[in-house]
Amino acid sequence: VQVAIVTLDGFNEIDSFVANSIINRAKGIRAYITTPTPTVTSLNGVEATGQRPLEFTAEADVVLIGSGSKTVEHVRDTDLMARLALDPERQWIGSQCSGALVLARLGLVDGRPVCADATSRPFAEAAGLTVLDQAFHSEGRIATAGGCLAAQYLAAWTLLRTVGEGEVRRALDYVAPVGEENATVERALKAVG
Amino acid sequence: VQVAIVTLDGFNEIDSFVANSIINRAKGIRAYITTPTPTVTSLNGVEATGQRPLEFTAEADVVLIGSGSKTVEHVRDTDLMARLALDPERQWIGSQCSGALVLARLGLVDGRPVCADATSRPFAEAAGLTVLDQAFHSEGRIATAGGCLAAQYLAAWTLLRTVGEGEVRRALDYVAPVGEENATVERALKAVG
Repeated sequence: VQVAIVTLDGFNEIDSFVANSIINRAKGIRAYITTPTPTVTSLNGVEATGQRPLEFTAEADVVLIGSGSKTVEHVRDTDLMARLALDPERQWIGSQCSGALVLARLGLVDGRPVCADATSRPFAEAAGLTVLDQAFHSEGRIATAGGCLAAQYLAAWTLLRTVGEGEVRRALDYVAPVGEENATVERALKAVG
Repeated sequence: VQVAIVTLDGFNEIDSFVANSIINRAKGIRAYITTPTPTVTSLNGVEATGQRPLEFTAEADVVLIGSGSKTVEHVRDTDLMARLALDPERQWIGSQCSGALVLARLGLVDGRPVCADATSRPFAEAAGLTVLDQAFHSEGRIATAGGCLAAQYLAAWTLLRTVGEGEVRRALDYVAPVGEENATVERALKAVG
């Protein structure tokens, strides 16, 4: 199972790297930081080199759209959006925070409520979306998460839908704060279940 | 207030980037990914460009040592360790997971128990350390955290000791999953309090 973690310029490090790191703790699945240019710079000025080009989104089994400080600009970039060739019949597709704006732009959340963070919320509402007061929501093959650390829920959903609950438990048990393993696993399974 | 997030080759992305991103949400403080070489590669193969050289640790007010898959090798590298000029009388110093091995190598946790993740634990015990069954422990100016997502506690401790509880609350409220803001803030304050 291959996962594209779409990471654009101005990206939020927690959103992209928490999902990437948790998914890569599981067996039978592999996540890649997927970028439109060879390198991208985070909202805190950290430059990261992409592991896959944006066109990898066409072949991935799961595509997770990260968040960032420039998403409003990115969704207006027709060339950039055209490089995201997603198939909601075949792929599992998720977004983190402002990534919901990308899903909206691609017509993937028409008529569905979404999750997003407080900063992205007014932009999502201006785009006609209904934003839920919760961290995670999924319908069919589409999921949205709100709040940076909800990236662990997006990772849990990805693992649950592809490699199963055992791998969710194993991966989250590993990354949880020591002594909070069970609480972390159960909170995530409840959020995505 | 300046914070060096020491990020070595083989680094764990959650450890370095969660702390960096949370700290940079607060006012009056700034964290930088601090590396021994211009670029470092994570344990999942993501290349990141450092924002400060390792020598920045000498002037920073806070130094947090990240974790990774090669820490055992790094602590044997005398030249690398010599570039970490830390002052426990002036600086706040913390470690995440296997970063405790670096603190031990620098003589900063002599006679003190530490926190570390399950994978690092046997190496820490082999180095003569007592590892606690909890996510966070601090004594004076030294703190250790265990389990990747305990990086939020290391960030909370950093903010609490430098810019105060108001900024801890503001930063964690921002990064928490939507609807879990209070629980996230209170859990962190309890862990570091």
